[in-house]
Amino acid sequence: MNKTLNIAVIGLGNIGSYLLNELNKKKKEIEIKTSKKINVVAISARNINKKRKFKINKKIFYKNPLKILKEKKIDILFELIGLSDGVSKKIVEQSIKKKIHVITANKALIAKHGEFLSSLAEKNKVNLEFEASVAGGIPILRTIKEGLVTNKINKVVGILNGTSNYILSEMQETNNSFKDVLKKAQKLGFAETNPKFDLNGQDVLSKIKILSSLSFNKKISKNKSLMKGIEDIELKDIKMANSLGMRIKLLGITEIIDNKLFERVHPCLVNKESYIANINGVMNAVILNGSPVGESVLQGEGAGPGPTSSALMSDLLSILRGNIKYPFGVSYNKRKIIKNYDLNKYSNSLYLRFEVRDKPGVLSQITKVLARFKISIDRLIQIPDHKNKRASIVIITHKANELNSSKCLNLLKINKNILKNPTLIRLF
Amino acid sequence: MNKTLNIAVIGLGNIGSYLLNELNKKKKEIEIKTSKKINVVAISARNINKKRKFKINKKIFYKNPLKILKEKKIDILFELIGLSDGVSKKIVEQSIKKKIHVITANKALIAKHGEFLSSLAEKNKVNLEFEASVAGGIPILRTIKEGLVTNKINKVVGILNGTSNYILSEMQETNNSFKDVLKKAQKLGFAETNPKFDLNGQDVLSKIKILSSLSFNKKISKNKSLMKGIEDIELKDIKMANSLGMRIKLLGITEIIDNKLFERVHPCLVNKESYIANINGVMNAVILNGSPVGESVLQGEGAGPGPTSSALMSDLLSILRGNIKYPFGVSYNKRKIIKNYDLNKYSNSLYLRFEVRDKPGVLSQITKVLARFKISIDRLIQIPDHKNKRASIVIITHKANELNSSKCLNLLKINKNILKNPTLIRLF
Repeated sequence: MNKTLNIAVIGLGNIGSYLLNELNKKKKEIEIKTSKKINVVAISARNINKKRKFKINKKIFYKNPLKILKEKKIDILFELIGLSDGVSKKIVEQSIKKKIHVITANKALIAKHGEFLSSLAEKNKVNLEFEASVAGGIPILRTIKEGLVTNKINKVVGILNGTSNYILSEMQETNNSFKDVLKKAQKLGFAETNPKFDLNGQDVLSKIKILSSLSFNKKISKNKSLMKGIEDIELKDIKMANSLGMRIKLLGITEIIDNKLFERVHPCLVNKESYIANINGVMNAVILNGSPVGESVLQGEGAGPGPTSSALMSDLLSILRGNIKYPFGVSYNKRKIIKNYDLNKYSNSLYLRFEVRDKPGVLSQITKVLARFKISIDRLIQIPDHKNKRASIVIITHKANELNSSKCLNLLKINKNILKNPTLIRLF
Repeated sequence: MNKTLNIAVIGLGNIGSYLLNELNKKKKEIEIKTSKKINVVAISARNINKKRKFKINKKIFYKNPLKILKEKKIDILFELIGLSDGVSKKIVEQSIKKKIHVITANKALIAKHGEFLSSLAEKNKVNLEFEASVAGGIPILRTIKEGLVTNKINKVVGILNGTSNYILSEMQETNNSFKDVLKKAQKLGFAETNPKFDLNGQDVLSKIKILSSLSFNKKISKNKSLMKGIEDIELKDIKMANSLGMRIKLLGITEIIDNKLFERVHPCLVNKESYIANINGVMNAVILNGSPVGESVLQGEGAGPGPTSSALMSDLLSILRGNIKYPFGVSYNKRKIIKNYDLNKYSNSLYLRFEVRDKPGVLSQITKVLARFKISIDRLIQIPDHKNKRASIVIITHKANELNSSKCLNLLKINKNILKNPTLIRLF
């Protein structure tokens, strides 16, 4: 590596422009810590004139990022566009082939093409770093790859989506509806204009796939996983959870059960007193179980340009210090493939909410179907809504098999006395 | 580096023998992750025949560790004796001079001689790694040096001594006295036979000195710091704290105030609901405030052979991967010297407990002296002990200056109606 390294930054949204400012401000510190100089020689975005919080140097601006690779000698490239394919994939792939180190915050790209890109990086002997793709400012990937490197990790649980966690916390605190809180979140910049992938669990699932791969030294799974977001959570559920001494949290979970991989994302009811219940707002948290280290907990801000830049800069300095490493800690061809655990075999306590017509016999219809599918009831709460001749029935079950409960709910769904799709939340 | 590296392990107590077993068990994993083979070629302890949980290979045993350096070619040496000077310092110094990488869990050595040894390691271009010296299984040093590398950290607060935290938690939970709980801790292996340095704050202060140095890119301070342990905490204080909605925790704190360094270790009263109040038993936790990352929290098991070995192995793999780095993240001659903040200028709310004769006028004597030193009272609780004609007076003050409060207590100490040294615990 030369003493001065040429940097390109692709994507100048909130994160890209914040990062540019950091790179500029911390040149001297970087030199002290790595004995290397950096020079940002090219930047790229769709729109040169967009309003940005930090000034950009228009002299080094490119509308087409691929042109940079043809015209300039780049040593390290930041990909901050964030698409799972398209120009994001193209620029990363071409950069690696030109022996340029790549740093990205793009979980969608890594979860989808991480295997291909990491093997390409290994072949070309460059770094592909993606600390910022999971849990923002929490250096969780580095912690797994280095700090806990020889531990046998068997389970990772995380609050990994700031938008969802903010909405759930805020509903809890203000008693406002999902819709109202989402609007507020969008106003405050905690939710995107199109928050689909944050709310439907997709964002968390990408992160979980990356975390599994690092934790269990395995290839990224392409299998279908249980993925449910928070879109169906109503204020009613939040209040009911509260009265049961619980909170609702969107969790990403990955673990090894019987040597099989069980990755899932769904809302969970967690004990109000537990650590995870008290991670509020846009915070992220990750709980790892490993041997011999025991339980490790990491908590920090999960999103936003500050924490994300903190992670991007850690990747940069790792490269500048010459720490060339396998992107996933273990070489592409030494990572295992682990078969998926069969979700249908899983058993869990469930929270079920039924909105029903308030007339005799409805409860017995429900409990009969539950019994048929061997779902036994731990607690039952019926809340009447006399004005509308309706009632909410909330049931906490003992451990119930996933296949049985899904069959059971499918049957109950078509019951005319049950007025809408039953709500199911798993207990943690 | 050769492809097979020769390892020496000096010190075969609980940690050393656990580590040997790990090194043996994980040879293959290490090779997969680093493309290097390791071979333990020498071990040393005072007593070859001591009962150990794991078998040691007596063929490679040396009574005198310094002899190893003369007779064998060593690439990486683990120092696990734990003295701040003596043979610990000798073996580390001589190893570095012979261009042997050193890994140690020895906070006392690093806090005392870290500057000398790190400059020596830089000169000889070898690693001096000490992840295991602070917070056991929590990879906090690596997180500061790498994961949060370009953040401007301004404050670090930690529960860093498992023994003290266990004793305080256990007193809280069981209502047993300090003495009884200490005995139990010793039985369970949570306290050493001579627990002095754990209980008087020395152990935490060493760790805080290492954390400050890394967090603020400064040389290890040789200045005297506020250091108080938990030896004077009575069950009375624990109960009183509880009734005030608080818990007592031994905290290590380091921060920059007005560009000066303020390192301290002392018991603190913390809000019962706060995160730090709920770190119980032998757990450790570290809270960092940095910019731009915000608040980061790391929690995990702070001691014991498992977590400590996890940290030692992370150091080993870092060396095997060829990550040669400055021991303190920044080169010896580029780290600053920061002057100490004058403790006498500091103000804090205080919890004061006086054991007094139960007779008229005593309270007024106390409050008069407090007033003279401008210490104003927020809450006052008097608990009579009629049988013994005594009373406990507990006072929570508004912010009081350290110099004033120490003068004030010195004066009250000699009051004949005050039966023993007043107890002072700072509020957090």
